[in-house]
Amino acid sequence: MRTYLECIPCFFRQALTAARLAGADEEDQKRILDEVAGVLPTFSLNATPPEMGRIIYRIVMKITGKDDPYRDIKAESTRKALALYPQLKEILSQSDDRLRTAVSFAIAGNSIDYGARDALDIEKELVSILDAENGASADTVFDYSRFRDAFHRAETILYLGDNVGETVFDRLLIEEMLQEPGKRITYVVRERPIINDALIDDARQCGIDDLVEIISSGSDAPGTLLPICSPEFLERFNNADMIVSKGQGNFETLSEERQPIFFLFMAKCQVIARDIGCRNGDMVLCDNTLRGNAVSGRGG
Amino acid sequence: MRTYLECIPCFFRQALTAARLAGADEEDQKRILDEVAGVLPTFSLNATPPEMGRIIYRIVMKITGKDDPYRDIKAESTRKALALYPQLKEILSQSDDRLRTAVSFAIAGNSIDYGARDALDIEKELVSILDAENGASADTVFDYSRFRDAFHRAETILYLGDNVGETVFDRLLIEEMLQEPGKRITYVVRERPIINDALIDDARQCGIDDLVEIISSGSDAPGTLLPICSPEFLERFNNADMIVSKGQGNFETLSEERQPIFFLFMAKCQVIARDIGCRNGDMVLCDNTLRGNAVSGRGG
Repeated sequence: MRTYLECIPCFFRQALTAARLAGADEEDQKRILDEVAGVLPTFSLNATPPEMGRIIYRIVMKITGKDDPYRDIKAESTRKALALYPQLKEILSQSDDRLRTAVSFAIAGNSIDYGARDALDIEKELVSILDAENGASADTVFDYSRFRDAFHRAETILYLGDNVGETVFDRLLIEEMLQEPGKRITYVVRERPIINDALIDDARQCGIDDLVEIISSGSDAPGTLLPICSPEFLERFNNADMIVSKGQGNFETLSEERQPIFFLFMAKCQVIARDIGCRNGDMVLCDNTLRGNAVSGRGG
Repeated sequence: MRTYLECIPCFFRQALTAARLAGADEEDQKRILDEVAGVLPTFSLNATPPEMGRIIYRIVMKITGKDDPYRDIKAESTRKALALYPQLKEILSQSDDRLRTAVSFAIAGNSIDYGARDALDIEKELVSILDAENGASADTVFDYSRFRDAFHRAETILYLGDNVGETVFDRLLIEEMLQEPGKRITYVVRERPIINDALIDDARQCGIDDLVEIISSGSDAPGTLLPICSPEFLERFNNADMIVSKGQGNFETLSEERQPIFFLFMAKCQVIARDIGCRNGDMVLCDNTLRGNAVSGRGG
């Protein structure tokens, strides 16, 4: 997805949030915003928003001198999400359609995002998770049947993670996916710290390494920015039967690609809601045919 | 009021809104945002937000080549507000406290502001005007009794206008003020086009020139920026018994002054709500003692 002009005020809002979460004082917060302003004239609207996210985060790291400003926040997210895990597992056990419920959980887990929201209370999010359990209304973009069919056909599945904490919800979905035999799933994380996005250690702390292989995409943008991804990742990306892409950043960087990608995320701004054709705050499950790109339906 | 860091994303949002209302195409909208970004590092947080508003508007004028991009919108605002005038006058005629009702109208009229809001439907605002008629709740900042007492004492009153359209609501309040004999009221407008702020002709089109003298402040900022105001205005400003200041921009530029100023406006953002101690969207009536500045209570 290209950058829209409405994204520009939001870049500054995100930079301010990032600066504060990184503990910058007011003077440094202003310096960070000034540096973002300095980059703006060179930033093309043809670039995706996560490319600016990457630049903003680098500026925050440089000025605060912290290589992982969200470390404590991420640890807290994992702790809180893991505490929810038994409850969620119990709800799943009572579901008539466990895969669908796990998909809803995985999307609801995407609400845990320090990049797009200023505040977090994971416990409160449980309410929306349980609501989501009842399925989406007719006017939302939630194409579960296409997802299910593609999943049943697929052998190799690339699962692109997003935020720390959300990883616990991903684990639930992966556990459900593994109930069906013959699936080879790889969980993908970012290469280096970027906002609160998951790294290999974060995925391990959620127990995903007990289930499937974890690799890095090579990208240190808050999305899967293919030009900076590793050859190892790209080889898997180009050959997977199905790609499960979590979060708005992965959507923004991959929405124009032609691989069989399913996007699972919470729409967190008006720009993306308009781009998708949903409402801000909706749980979205769509594949890239929505955008006129072919889903090949390879495999199994 | 100083500029807060939260104002910075809002500057870009305002610049985008201004660029679009001025008819800039997408390329020019981006150029306008890039130029605002270029100014940001030189902009001190000790400056007031309208100082940046003035810079933004100059950039919009330069890039669009239009000296008054909001001309049509302003004409439409006047037309719509004048159409409401008979209804409002009728409501006033049935009020037990006409001055108070007129004050509420004058504040509600401040909701007509293209600078802080993207959309407008003056007719819909009538609902909030009528609600306002019932007075503000205990937890809002609405100190009518101080306003009334200061008004009864004052002989010379300087009334600082804000937006076009709102001027019609100002006329209603001025008409009520003139019911009390011995008041010498001057209505003040901006010197040159700035967003949708009222100029001398706008005030005339609302019939204010039939009631009181109209002068320009000399300021072409979306507020009363004293360092650029005319000596004629400053002389009146320094000697008025009471100053009635309409709108957020006038508040932001005058909140630290020591003249006997009463601020009447709708709080249109979280920053100002926090600064004032009210909620976003509240109707505010306060004087500058709220901020620790003395109101001398000169005159009558």
